[in-house]
Amino acid sequence: MKKQTRAGYLQRPGTTRILGGTGDAAVRRTVLPGGLRVVTEPVPGVRSASVGIWVAVGSRDEGRPQAGAAHYLEHLLFKGTAKRTAVDIAQEIDAVGGELNAFTAKEHTCYYAHVLDRDLPLAIDMLCDVVFDALNAKSDVDVERSVVLEEIAMRDDDPEDLLHELFTSAVLGDHPLGRSVLGTEDSITEMTRARVNGFYRRSYEMPKMVIAAAGNVDHGRVLRLLRKALGDRLDGDVLPAPPRTGRARLPKQKPLALHTDDTEQAHLLMGCRGFDRYDDRRFALGVLNAALGGGMSSRLFQEVRERRGLAYSVYSATTAYSDAGTFSVYAGCTPDRLGEVATVIRGVLAGVAADGLTADEVERGRGQLRGGLVLGLEDSASRMSRIGKIELNYGRHFTVEETLERIDAVTVDDVAELAAELLRRPLTTAVVGPYDSPEDLPDGV
Amino acid sequence: MKKQTRAGYLQRPGTTRILGGTGDAAVRRTVLPGGLRVVTEPVPGVRSASVGIWVAVGSRDEGRPQAGAAHYLEHLLFKGTAKRTAVDIAQEIDAVGGELNAFTAKEHTCYYAHVLDRDLPLAIDMLCDVVFDALNAKSDVDVERSVVLEEIAMRDDDPEDLLHELFTSAVLGDHPLGRSVLGTEDSITEMTRARVNGFYRRSYEMPKMVIAAAGNVDHGRVLRLLRKALGDRLDGDVLPAPPRTGRARLPKQKPLALHTDDTEQAHLLMGCRGFDRYDDRRFALGVLNAALGGGMSSRLFQEVRERRGLAYSVYSATTAYSDAGTFSVYAGCTPDRLGEVATVIRGVLAGVAADGLTADEVERGRGQLRGGLVLGLEDSASRMSRIGKIELNYGRHFTVEETLERIDAVTVDDVAELAAELLRRPLTTAVVGPYDSPEDLPDGV
Repeated sequence: MKKQTRAGYLQRPGTTRILGGTGDAAVRRTVLPGGLRVVTEPVPGVRSASVGIWVAVGSRDEGRPQAGAAHYLEHLLFKGTAKRTAVDIAQEIDAVGGELNAFTAKEHTCYYAHVLDRDLPLAIDMLCDVVFDALNAKSDVDVERSVVLEEIAMRDDDPEDLLHELFTSAVLGDHPLGRSVLGTEDSITEMTRARVNGFYRRSYEMPKMVIAAAGNVDHGRVLRLLRKALGDRLDGDVLPAPPRTGRARLPKQKPLALHTDDTEQAHLLMGCRGFDRYDDRRFALGVLNAALGGGMSSRLFQEVRERRGLAYSVYSATTAYSDAGTFSVYAGCTPDRLGEVATVIRGVLAGVAADGLTADEVERGRGQLRGGLVLGLEDSASRMSRIGKIELNYGRHFTVEETLERIDAVTVDDVAELAAELLRRPLTTAVVGPYDSPEDLPDGV
Repeated sequence: MKKQTRAGYLQRPGTTRILGGTGDAAVRRTVLPGGLRVVTEPVPGVRSASVGIWVAVGSRDEGRPQAGAAHYLEHLLFKGTAKRTAVDIAQEIDAVGGELNAFTAKEHTCYYAHVLDRDLPLAIDMLCDVVFDALNAKSDVDVERSVVLEEIAMRDDDPEDLLHELFTSAVLGDHPLGRSVLGTEDSITEMTRARVNGFYRRSYEMPKMVIAAAGNVDHGRVLRLLRKALGDRLDGDVLPAPPRTGRARLPKQKPLALHTDDTEQAHLLMGCRGFDRYDDRRFALGVLNAALGGGMSSRLFQEVRERRGLAYSVYSATTAYSDAGTFSVYAGCTPDRLGEVATVIRGVLAGVAADGLTADEVERGRGQLRGGLVLGLEDSASRMSRIGKIELNYGRHFTVEETLERIDAVTVDDVAELAAELLRRPLTTAVVGPYDSPEDLPDGV
């Protein structure tokens, strides 16, 4: 067993381990010279392959003047390498009907491809090319600046997206985790090639990367294709980097944040600071979140939408970083009923803080997590994401069965204890809507 | 072969046919007494099941005073049956971690469930219960009214969604296909229980329905479960209804539609009337659409985003109904560059109308359609949607291989001929953005 669960960042370069699962469906991990981790998982019955390069670098690694550099860089990597122009990259992936894309988060960035299994060699070659060999030419930095500014403007036109940014910055305060991944209009306008390319050269290092592949893939073949694509770069007896640790020193939380906008609905997010991703209570939190606002039978859906017809969309959500997290409830409603909605939500949270959940609710919450987990893992892309993210974030492997066991082990008491703590924490309320100032918000908010 | 391709609506009740595919992965169709069609497709390797009830009834079947009735009804069906309350429905599906949902389109409505394979009996029983036995109680009609009004307000807060409605109503004119599925604030405010329940009683008939199931499912077992759920309702030597036919008499097209909104970006949709879903040119249209605005290598992406950095999001799209369709191009940009964006888009369309596409572009377009089709059909839910929609819309079956052959058969000349016709049709331009009147739009729009 020790062999199976040994952390990836303690595994020596040049070695391979079977991490879980059996036979043809086993997850395998190899650490290549240079400290690059490779994890693969075959998915029976599919004819596709998903490959992702996960980099443990995100917007929280930026200094304030660099705000948005990680995401800007993610755009730039597709603009050309020593071997391929941006047009080449686009044409090669479109010709095989594949998808090549990327996303930037606060603690990581992922570049991925989803292709027919026969196109796996192309996918691996292209991903390695853009991640390791991007040119970041000055002219591309300038054209891409306006694309990123348009992306910010697009986000600002989506009240729900904007609200999530507003809430996060109020609840986590002026901390890199509280800032937008996109950066600000000012930081993007002033971003230089030197700054973003410097960020690339300094932070994109092999020991901080995990290459994950799932679908109709063979571990040995993936390794051969990587050796071919990366060549001499795979060098050195370097251990992979351990997962992020530390404790965030979060500045003061703001109780209220309002963005005035002439919207039809008022968009409300209420919540508090939550738990980090290593916290053992995360499974109980998952059950609580499902039962509070995860499905049609959840308390919030029933109280806000079904009984009172106050909202079309109402849900709760959690985020978890290496050393911080949030819990929140969203609802969109008619502006003059915002006070009623806030009062109902606060009442639901207070009730669960005081009395926990019923045994039926906890059982349904567990069922929802279990079903959602299994149903969400049937395709290559979701399998690839799961193993890539686990390796990067935890540095060790969990099988789906282990996660299901942890979910099944959550008790009514676990949830009650957790709720009593979490749901009594100071609340932050964020609103996007047609109110000129906090004084104009309806009573109850 | 005749046996395999014989249309579902000509198949006699009580008979089963194998439609395509081989062995365990064959698509099977049975017509049950009462004229109810059942199509199933096993998906190798998955442990889930997706079931959908497709009803050939949508918003185009509404009279003007009923606008939004089909969608309102879709909400109401989950509010309770003779056997289950709304809370029962929500709790039963959440307990197994499944998804139970529905959507309403212009020509059909679909109720579906996605569950672990062992929960197939529950999924079939619940879907049949809500679709065939809904109560539509007056008190539920009233509570749900405000939920639907919130859904309309939410749509109005999303400029891109609002733009698509604006464009459709301008390009198709004042025709049921041009109206919003959601109805209007007025029509929903005035909707009565009698009206929506009458719509249900009149239009939800078995010969207009297809039940589709895919995943780890067995055709015989699905039939047994349906017989158990529907009992005496399965009665009568009735043929299924044929697909919709006819020619839409579309009123006058409007060249310009503006919705003034204080958005950060200007949101632009330019396009024209397209082709219906039976049109043999639909495969050439798919290739043209992919090459024009479907991927990173497409002309519009390259000209608008890559070369000029004018937009973050730019794409082309098609819709196809039984007797009408649309083709359109979307871009979101800084308000003062809208004229430049419109000019670039118009130039791209005129160039392709005059000269067609290069052989490389057509080949990439075919590759994109092929890859996208195959990669998009790995899970139970997408397989279920494919066979359900095909049966409802075409009344006969196509295998994936047949569709791939049709895509491969598209030539450079087919696309050129199509583009010369389509892209010279009168254009409609729709804009959501910070312009008070059409006179305020920048030159070039």
